[in-house]
Parts: sequence; C-alpha cells; structure tokens
Amino acid sequence: MHEETSVVRVGVLGCGNVGAALVTLLADQAASIEARSGLRLELARVAVRNLAKSRSVQLAEGILTHDAQGVVDDPDIDVVVELVGGIEPARSLVLDALKSGKPVVTANKELVANVGAELFAAADAAGVDLLFEAAVAGAIPVVRPLRESLAGTPIRRITGIVNGTTNYILSRMSEQGATYADALAEAQSLGYAERDPTADVEGFDAGAKVAILATIAFGTSVVAGDVSHEGISGVTPADIAFAHRLGYEVKLLAVAEHGGDGRVAVRVHPAMVPRGHPLASVRGSFNAVFIEADTLGELMLYGRGAGGLPTASAVLGDVVDAAGNRRRGTYASIGAMPRAVIRPIDEVSSEYCLHLEVLDRPGVLHAVSGVFAEHGVSIRSMEQEGLGDEARLIFITHEAAEASVQATLASLRGLDVVDRVRSVIRVVA
Amino acid sequence: MHEETSVVRVGVLGCGNVGAALVTLLADQAASIEARSGLRLELARVAVRNLAKSRSVQLAEGILTHDAQGVVDDPDIDVVVELVGGIEPARSLVLDALKSGKPVVTANKELVANVGAELFAAADAAGVDLLFEAAVAGAIPVVRPLRESLAGTPIRRITGIVNGTTNYILSRMSEQGATYADALAEAQSLGYAERDPTADVEGFDAGAKVAILATIAFGTSVVAGDVSHEGISGVTPADIAFAHRLGYEVKLLAVAEHGGDGRVAVRVHPAMVPRGHPLASVRGSFNAVFIEADTLGELMLYGRGAGGLPTASAVLGDVVDAAGNRRRGTYASIGAMPRAVIRPIDEVSSEYCLHLEVLDRPGVLHAVSGVFAEHGVSIRSMEQEGLGDEARLIFITHEAAEASVQATLASLRGLDVVDRVRSVIRVVA
Repeated sequence: MHEETSVVRVGVLGCGNVGAALVTLLADQAASIEARSGLRLELARVAVRNLAKSRSVQLAEGILTHDAQGVVDDPDIDVVVELVGGIEPARSLVLDALKSGKPVVTANKELVANVGAELFAAADAAGVDLLFEAAVAGAIPVVRPLRESLAGTPIRRITGIVNGTTNYILSRMSEQGATYADALAEAQSLGYAERDPTADVEGFDAGAKVAILATIAFGTSVVAGDVSHEGISGVTPADIAFAHRLGYEVKLLAVAEHGGDGRVAVRVHPAMVPRGHPLASVRGSFNAVFIEADTLGELMLYGRGAGGLPTASAVLGDVVDAAGNRRRGTYASIGAMPRAVIRPIDEVSSEYCLHLEVLDRPGVLHAVSGVFAEHGVSIRSMEQEGLGDEARLIFITHEAAEASVQATLASLRGLDVVDRVRSVIRVVA
Repeated sequence: MHEETSVVRVGVLGCGNVGAALVTLLADQAASIEARSGLRLELARVAVRNLAKSRSVQLAEGILTHDAQGVVDDPDIDVVVELVGGIEPARSLVLDALKSGKPVVTANKELVANVGAELFAAADAAGVDLLFEAAVAGAIPVVRPLRESLAGTPIRRITGIVNGTTNYILSRMSEQGATYADALAEAQSLGYAERDPTADVEGFDAGAKVAILATIAFGTSVVAGDVSHEGISGVTPADIAFAHRLGYEVKLLAVAEHGGDGRVAVRVHPAMVPRGHPLASVRGSFNAVFIEADTLGELMLYGRGAGGLPTASAVLGDVVDAAGNRRRGTYASIGAMPRAVIRPIDEVSSEYCLHLEVLDRPGVLHAVSGVFAEHGVSIRSMEQEGLGDEARLIFITHEAAEASVQATLASLRGLDVVDRVRSVIRVVA
C-alpha cells in the first residue's frame, strides 16, 4: 500500500519538441502514475521564450509564462524540469533551483557534459536530486543503470552509437549504397538532421554524451572538451563496400575506456564493426550503448535515442523518481568526484584498416611493410585489390597506438610507390 | 560527500555457483563499494546444506554454517541473500527475514514467479526491500528499469530471449546446421544444459522469467502457472533452413502482452524472427529483453543471462541498493497488486507459418485454401516447394487466433490431399 496521495507541482522550463510531448504525457499518464505511486503530478508552470508562438499543446490559463526565473523561485513548485538547452541561462536556472531545495530533471546533454560536476556538487550540497536520464540516448535507460544497477561494477569500456542522425546516414549508405551527401540530404528532408548538421556529423553531440557516460561509469568528471572527435563526412561508399566485403559495418562510435593506469580515454570516430557484433545491427535512427565489464561480461542497451515522445518519456520517469525521493526525504547522490585524468588520443590504441593506392610494381609491398615495421605497427592481414593504375593495398593492423599509426601514415605519404592514402578507419576487434 | 561509513553485515543462504562467485566479488569489490557509497559490506555468514563439501572459495573460520534459519534470525545480520533455489524452504526463510525487518535479495526465479505476490506483500508490510534483479536475465538490468525507469510507462509487449540454453542450441542449429539432438548434446558437454534439460528446452525456465517480467511491467500478479509453453525439441534443421530462406531466424521467445481489455497474455514458444529485428542477432547463450511501449518506442536490453559471475554481479548490485536504502530508512515498494486476468492461449493472436506435405495434383491449393477461409484464417503468402512425392505448401498467415489456427490444422489433417502437417511455427511480424 502507498502512503496517502501527495501532490507534486512540476515547473517546466522550455516548451519545444520535448516540452510539448512532456505536457501531453503528463496529462495522459497522471492518473496511472497516481494509482501506481500515490504521486499526483500537476503541471504548474511552463516557461517559454516567446509567449505569442503557436503551440501544438493546449495549456490551461495561467500556466504559460515568460519568466523562467520566476518558475525556479516559485515556492509552490516542487520539481523543476529544464528543457531550455545550452549552457546559459540553463546553468544558472538549474543551480538556483537546486540551491532552493528543488529537485531538477534535465534532458540537456550540453549542460551536463560541460558543467556537470558543478551541478552534482550543488545537488549534493542541497540534498536533492539532479536527474538526467534523457540527456544520453533518449528513451534508453542507461544513466540510471550505470548509477545504480552497475554501481560498484568495474566497467572497462563503453561503446555507444549515441547519435541517431549519423547512424541513419551510415545505415542509408550501407543499405542503399547512397553517397554521404545524398544520405545527409535525405536525413535533412526527414527532419533527422539539422540544416547545419555539424554538431551531429562531426561527432560533437556524441562527444557530449560519451563524456556523461564516462563520468557516471568511471566516477570521475569527464567534460565534452576531453573528447577527441572524428566525424563521418569523410566516409565514402567505397569504404562501406569494402567493409561489407570483409564482413563489417561502418558505424560512428563513441568510446569511453578506463585504463589499468586509472586514466580515461574518450573519443568519437567512425569504425568498422564486425557483422556478428550486437552494435552492427543497430540500424537507422536507433541508438545503443554497449558496456563491457569483467564481472558481468557484455551488456547492450538499445532503443530510441531521440524524438520528442521517447525523450519526454525518459524525463517523466525521472520526474516520478525525483518526486518519490522527495516524499521519502531522500535523493540519489552522485557525490563529489575528482577530475578525470585523460589519456591523450595519441596514446590510445586500436586496430586500424588502411587503404592505400599504390604503383603496381615489384617491391611495393616490401617498401610499404618496411614503413609499418619501422613504426612498430604490426600487420594482421593484407590484401591487394586491382592491377595497374587501380592497384590498392588494404592492411588491417593489430592494436597500435594512434601516434604510431599517424607516424606510419606520414612516412607512407612520403613513399614514391604510394599514390594516396585512400582511407584510414579504426576496426573493432 | 557521503554520510559516515556504515557497516552492513550480509548473510548468504546457499553457496553454489552464484554464491561462490558472490563471495569472491564481495571480497574484490568491498573497498571500491565503500569508497563510492560509504557502505562497508561484510560477509557475516554463509549457510550451506553440506558443510563437508569442498568449495572453490575460501571462507574465514566461523562464516560457514549449516543453519540457514539461524542466519535469518541472527540480529547481527543486516541483509539476507537467498541463493537456495526452489520454493521451500526458500519461501519460509525469505518470509521470516522480511518479517524480522531484514531486506532480502534473491536470484530465485522459481520463488518470485510462484509466490512473488506473497513476498511483495510481506516486504511492504515490513517496510523493507525485496530485490530480485538476478532472477530474470542474470546480469542484464531489466527488473530495475521496469520497476523504476519505466514505471508509469504503459508497456504493450515484452518479448524476451531469456533462456541461454535454448538460444545456444538454436544458434548452433542455425549456424552449423546441427540437429536438435546434436546441439543439445554439445550444450550438455559444455555445461550450458543440464543432464535433464526439460526445464530449459520445454520453456519452463523462460516461463518463470516471463511471469516475473509481466508482473512488474503490468503491475498485476502473473504466476508461472499462467504461462503457455511450447518448447524447441520439435524444431528441425528443415524448419531453420526454411526460415533462413525467407529471411528469418528461429528463436525461443517468451512473450508477455497487455491487451487493450486489461487482460494479460503470457506464453513461451519458438518463433520465426525477421533478420532485421534486434532479437534475431542475439546469438549463443546471450539473453535479451525487447520492450514495446507507445511512448518510448522499442527498447532492448541485451547481455549475459546466466553464469555465476554475471549473476553474482547483479545480486551484489541489489545488495548495495538494499543496504543504501536501509541506511536512508527507505525501501523500493512494489505494493499490493491484483491478480492478473489471463487471456487464454486460444484467444491469443499471432502470425503463423504452416508447412504442409501435400499430394501433387490439381485442385490441392483450392481445397487447402478453402479450409483456411472456413476458419477465418487469412493467408499472407503461399509458395509451393518440390513436386510429386516431395510437394509441399508453405503458408504464412495474417494475424489469427490460436484457436482458429488449431481448428484449421484439425481440418487440414482430415483432408485427403494433405499427407502431413510438417510444422507450425509462429512468425514475428
């Protein structure tokens, strides 16, 4: 049996895509949430920038306001939901809400990935919840499992497909043989990609998410600026056709690794993923987070990473949780955490696939393989494709440090017999 | 910052595979758990049936005992972990522990799937935790996401691959073309299957798990006895080859559906799963739980469903959680729940694939299709394979109720032109 019903007044900052879906969800699910938890969630205020803008949702008189700070300061508001996006004024609003003892739910990955440590400390000092399940991988429960179910499990590596736009583009290139430009244009026409797609295609969005994942998985503060980026705009249909021939799919991966030395490596880059790997079958705009830990083996969480309703659904889950904790007088502490020591990308190891256009003459392989040896990069497999002007050598290396591979590439480019380094892409073993 | 360190004395009932791994994990991770949570977990007592048995783990003097009831009654024990298995004496021990105000963590699916409602009520009455993440799908966090992240999200259907033994057998049949008997023998030799494999291959193990999933997903009590079963012992290499040709894999699925009428359907059966579906790529002894909800779309949780260490890891997560809740004076309530109204399997609808051996003569299709029409089963596709003595008709139906399909089969078997119904298998759309 539940305690008697307690009314929880929710203030929402921002009413875009996710906010509008949240308003609808709250109305639809309030009764079942109350039946289940004894919490009566009431939408108290919704702060928007432009009061005059027409909206897809109907709001009762007096709910809509221009005054976000007023919502944060309102003593009648019990829980604040931040859907403004960006760092300021979101940061100040969230800090003020926490300081006044209000639990905060946010879907703002930029905010958490840049000033998360400050916000966690403020939440802890005030003894209230700061929940952000929706900031990473939308509707997929990943933040909470990492904070709770997997707390104390030493996690070795997290590999995520956490950007739906790029996964959609790469899926179209893989399934339809589309060029990058055509697949991007299609994603834009469907609303999966922004007019300016930089944040997605260059890996910044995925980078913010992997910083958050690394922070909660390893218990040390990792910020967006720690993440090395390589986007997908250089991926060609030839790269994908070649990957297919070897039994791989090309995916944009966000990787966080915890080294034996305590340092953390965080990076976003395209990679060849073997077809049998669970991440290879994550298609279209779906997301997935693949977790490796010694004690529990491999774990993957898969689902809708974006979209108004799925994201709002994750936000609502956090609101119910924060409201329940508030009633019980408790909260989910993240606690103070040290700044992570970041392993520079130069020292990060991976397997690589290198695709070289070479002259078709005796001794080429000898010259090229000498360059690999000189830089200590060991070759796992090699094959020649084409003849004459079309001659190409394709190498897959054993695990090698980024710096050694870059040095190898520089030397290869200086070799007479190498016309061009056509592509370099990491390989998931 | 955490509150000052609090010591939590853990009593473990049972020291088999999972218990031994838990003892090791506790020793290995105690320091990091304390650093992270301020909880110092101490292994206080381990109750076993046979004190003389040699064990893979070393236990300090005085830890091992024959007296499980004594562990439950010991006022110095703070949290009880039940790894005895089966219903009695596990049920009595768990009830006694709860009644004396001790939180209980269990990995016992049989217990929760049969007398869960009684245990939930006892936990609620005592105001303590009863946690059972490890009872379903081992290391995969699925119970907690359903209890917390997805609480309040109306879930339409859960489709699980929750038995590693059968998934291993079907994977071998699919990948190596092995017969059922050979794949089973191999699974037995590797320790993936018991000497008496009935509980796994006939779907009872998966049935207990899906009863638990249905209970927590739909908030109504579903017991193991509510689940309809069909195992994999009848699946032939021909079924699998045929499924492959149409672009499907054959999987043993555990399905829980919540109908619009409030009734719940729970069943375990083999099914053809389209290759593009995320469940199709769950191979070997891995498990996965696929969740469909209107608001958040599709979600899949994938990982190790069994094994000592992964299961112990899930148990330890629950122990940390229970200990933390105990310190904060709170607990995760499931609450009293009504008994589910079960939809009889006869009324459950699905798509079906029917494989008939027929006489190769004019009018056969006419006669056969007449039988389908008579029972209101609509045909989505049909193809003929082979000629003469080898003639076969393969039908895939639109969604049809089990009862109608069974009536169709009975009529088909009475038809002169039908030699034999070779196989009937459900199809995931």
